[in-house]
Amino acid sequence: MARQRKPNAELLSDLVAANHILFNEGVVDGFGHVSARDDRDSGRFLLARSIAPGTVTTRDIMEFDLEGEPVDARGRRPYLERFIHSEIYRLRPDVQAIVHSHSPSVVPYGVTGMHLRPIFHMSGFLGAVTPIFEIRDAGGPATDMLIRDRKLGAALARTLGSATFALMRGHGSVAVGAGIRQVVYRAIYAEVNAKLQLEASRLGEITFLNDQEAARAMATNDGVLDRPWELWKRRVKTLR
Amino acid sequence: MARQRKPNAELLSDLVAANHILFNEGVVDGFGHVSARDDRDSGRFLLARSIAPGTVTTRDIMEFDLEGEPVDARGRRPYLERFIHSEIYRLRPDVQAIVHSHSPSVVPYGVTGMHLRPIFHMSGFLGAVTPIFEIRDAGGPATDMLIRDRKLGAALARTLGSATFALMRGHGSVAVGAGIRQVVYRAIYAEVNAKLQLEASRLGEITFLNDQEAARAMATNDGVLDRPWELWKRRVKTLR
Amino acid sequence: MARQRKPNAELLSDLVAANHILFNEGVVDGFGHVSARDDRDSGRFLLARSIAPGTVTTRDIMEFDLEGEPVDARGRRPYLERFIHSEIYRLRPDVQAIVHSHSPSVVPYGVTGMHLRPIFHMSGFLGAVTPIFEIRDAGGPATDMLIRDRKLGAALARTLGSATFALMRGHGSVAVGAGIRQVVYRAIYAEVNAKLQLEASRLGEITFLNDQEAARAMATNDGVLDRPWELWKRRVKTLR
Amino acid sequence: MARQRKPNAELLSDLVAANHILFNEGVVDGFGHVSARDDRDSGRFLLARSIAPGTVTTRDIMEFDLEGEPVDARGRRPYLERFIHSEIYRLRPDVQAIVHSHSPSVVPYGVTGMHLRPIFHMSGFLGAVTPIFEIRDAGGPATDMLIRDRKLGAALARTLGSATFALMRGHGSVAVGAGIRQVVYRAIYAEVNAKLQLEASRLGEITFLNDQEAARAMATNDGVLDRPWELWKRRVKTLR
Repeated sequence: MARQRKPNAELLSDLVAANHILFNEGVVDGFGHVSARDDRDSGRFLLARSIAPGTVTTRDIMEFDLEGEPVDARGRRPYLERFIHSEIYRLRPDVQAIVHSHSPSVVPYGVTGMHLRPIFHMSGFLGAVTPIFEIRDAGGPATDMLIRDRKLGAALARTLGSATFALMRGHGSVAVGAGIRQVVYRAIYAEVNAKLQLEASRLGEITFLNDQEAARAMATNDGVLDRPWELWKRRVKTLR
Repeated sequence: MARQRKPNAELLSDLVAANHILFNEGVVDGFGHVSARDDRDSGRFLLARSIAPGTVTTRDIMEFDLEGEPVDARGRRPYLERFIHSEIYRLRPDVQAIVHSHSPSVVPYGVTGMHLRPIFHMSGFLGAVTPIFEIRDAGGPATDMLIRDRKLGAALARTLGSATFALMRGHGSVAVGAGIRQVVYRAIYAEVNAKLQLEASRLGEITFLNDQEAARAMATNDGVLDRPWELWKRRVKTLR
Repeated sequence: MARQRKPNAELLSDLVAANHILFNEGVVDGFGHVSARDDRDSGRFLLARSIAPGTVTTRDIMEFDLEGEPVDARGRRPYLERFIHSEIYRLRPDVQAIVHSHSPSVVPYGVTGMHLRPIFHMSGFLGAVTPIFEIRDAGGPATDMLIRDRKLGAALARTLGSATFALMRGHGSVAVGAGIRQVVYRAIYAEVNAKLQLEASRLGEITFLNDQEAARAMATNDGVLDRPWELWKRRVKTLR
Repeated sequence: MARQRKPNAELLSDLVAANHILFNEGVVDGFGHVSARDDRDSGRFLLARSIAPGTVTTRDIMEFDLEGEPVDARGRRPYLERFIHSEIYRLRPDVQAIVHSHSPSVVPYGVTGMHLRPIFHMSGFLGAVTPIFEIRDAGGPATDMLIRDRKLGAALARTLGSATFALMRGHGSVAVGAGIRQVVYRAIYAEVNAKLQLEASRLGEITFLNDQEAARAMATNDGVLDRPWELWKRRVKTLR
């Protein structure tokens, strides 16, 4: 059996906070999940057991290997879709944290084939193309839409490629980042961008950020991730 | 007079919680109602007296027979529209719980003849067709729109047929399920789906779940109904 | 000087509650107002001094005659637009309560000439036609848009005619009723109807309630006004 | 080194309140800022250090000169975009307070070239034209979209000209006023107007306020700025 090492307490604490923030900001409801790669063992990642993100505590955080198997389950039931996380961590060594959600303004893009694009500087991370994952291509026409095994997870990871965000047809989306605070920022502002782009598309033709603007805006915002993070954490406290 | 048997305490408690959850999640306002078939007597069902769902307590729950008559009213005034419940329970032995609401994103479908269809895996239960009830067909052109007698209730039940959800023109909708947690899930995600479908229809042509995807997604989600239920219950407590 | 009689305490209490409810339900913000005719003197009405409705207490309620003049101001500053109320009470002996608001979903109808029509049974009171008041007809092209004198108030009252609800171009709306609970119901469900009608108009052609359906639905709902009123009052308490 | 004079305590207190109100009313999120010109030295202005507006306290307020340099930073990190404020105060002696935000309903106008126009009397201050700032004109095609130096700030100030409100493509907007209460009012009602105009544009052709109506409505509303201000302040207290 694998040697157990206690994960970093700050990482655990940030991951619990991320669960609460994503619920509080409307990115996840009873469903959706956020994970972080173990910073002491890049072959493992942390993810809550199968409960609503808004109710997660430290004791609910499980550890998984890159085959999506729990390291020490102790009777805790994992999410069916943990393979979203394991396969992306396997394919993308740069990724340290992942959010999967059905955030409401994003779903319409996946089912219509419309690409999300950066409408303002807060969402430069979306880049020029948001890939769309069609589960029928990998799983055929009769799945239950869930990424419930390694094969489907690997197909999703390939569709994501080197992007920061991918749409999943009839399901939701996945955001990746170099850390928990960055991926929470991305999941929240992808939702904001989706709503703004939908409204703007009714007023006329949209001038999106060009590639350079997007890349530079992303770099600048990556320098101030703590500002919204502290606000979002505080809002969770206030509402509880 | 009919023999009285105390209904199951857990069923009562879940029914009261369902009233509060449906209000808290925006499915009902001052109007709308949720019932459960008595699990000790399939010829009876439980439904609150005529008050706003968000204010219901155990003492407000009345019992009715399948003709919509109260078993032991003790001065409590029933909802005018209890015949929605009695006639569906009569026609559909599989149905154990029913929600009637005017949830806001659903109303526009009934008045335009647009069908609600499953846009993502959370709403596979909608299936391929959501029937639309036109009260003029059964009640003529001069009703007050309410299902205020057995004849109108029976007509609505026939329109519902074997479906899980029906639209009511100029009024709202009805959702049915095999239990309280399932029907609450369906009422909430029908509202979510309605909103998503409306937004998506503005972006382009929608790829809905196909029949197999819808059926399989429904089966999978029916296995995790407790997850959102626990969250919704907790949200009610937090806000009170 | 006019003889002073203390107004009915229950009427005063309901009027204060109406101010809070309309704020809490999103019909008024810092602006807008609600009045009630004095039930002991039909030539007078009650209306708060010029403050935000959400902050009104019993001490802020002033009495006015049907010329819009305060009976006993005691230094309290009245709303500039009290003539909306005085002139409607003068022209419409059946009206016992009035709400003026800029409720957000209603404003778009007035500026586009689109009529609000009853999309579901909750808003049968809207009837077949919602008149639109164009202040330029009575005040010329250079007003500040406010009903700031008797002449403009009388013109608005004439536009309202025998209706329950009128749109005001570039401004908002006015609802009238046979009592405080009824007019609060109407102001809230006019806003709900406006939002539903806007969404439905994007899905296709709308089947509105016909005249008989509207009239009968209104009569039925007038019998259960206490149900939402008690809920709305309780919500205000909960949030404070 | 510059002589230090303690700023007016009431001005400081209003500026802190303005930060909280703008967050509470949905104009700013983790980003955006509000400043006030020092009423004892027109060559200086007050602006928080680089934190989320909803969390600002008196100790976070810094003083800047009209070159955007902090007078006495004491280790506090300023907003990158303080040059929005310094250059507008330099060009517009009449301006005493400025709000920069990414308020959600306003962003779509800047990216589509659609002008915000006064749809009702609450937003007469928008006037006939809301200028749109295109950063590519002053900064070229490869900026990070931020007003991060004096040159870009001066270009934005020139685009604003004598207006009260300017859109910034791919970014947000800036509102100016003769005082904190006025500019907060303008930032909030610009957001309200943007949402109303978007909805109304779907119903049909809009009749906007004409120039005289806009000017007169603005003058009238400027006389009652304390009414919403007191409400907004109270809402912040209630929610905390």
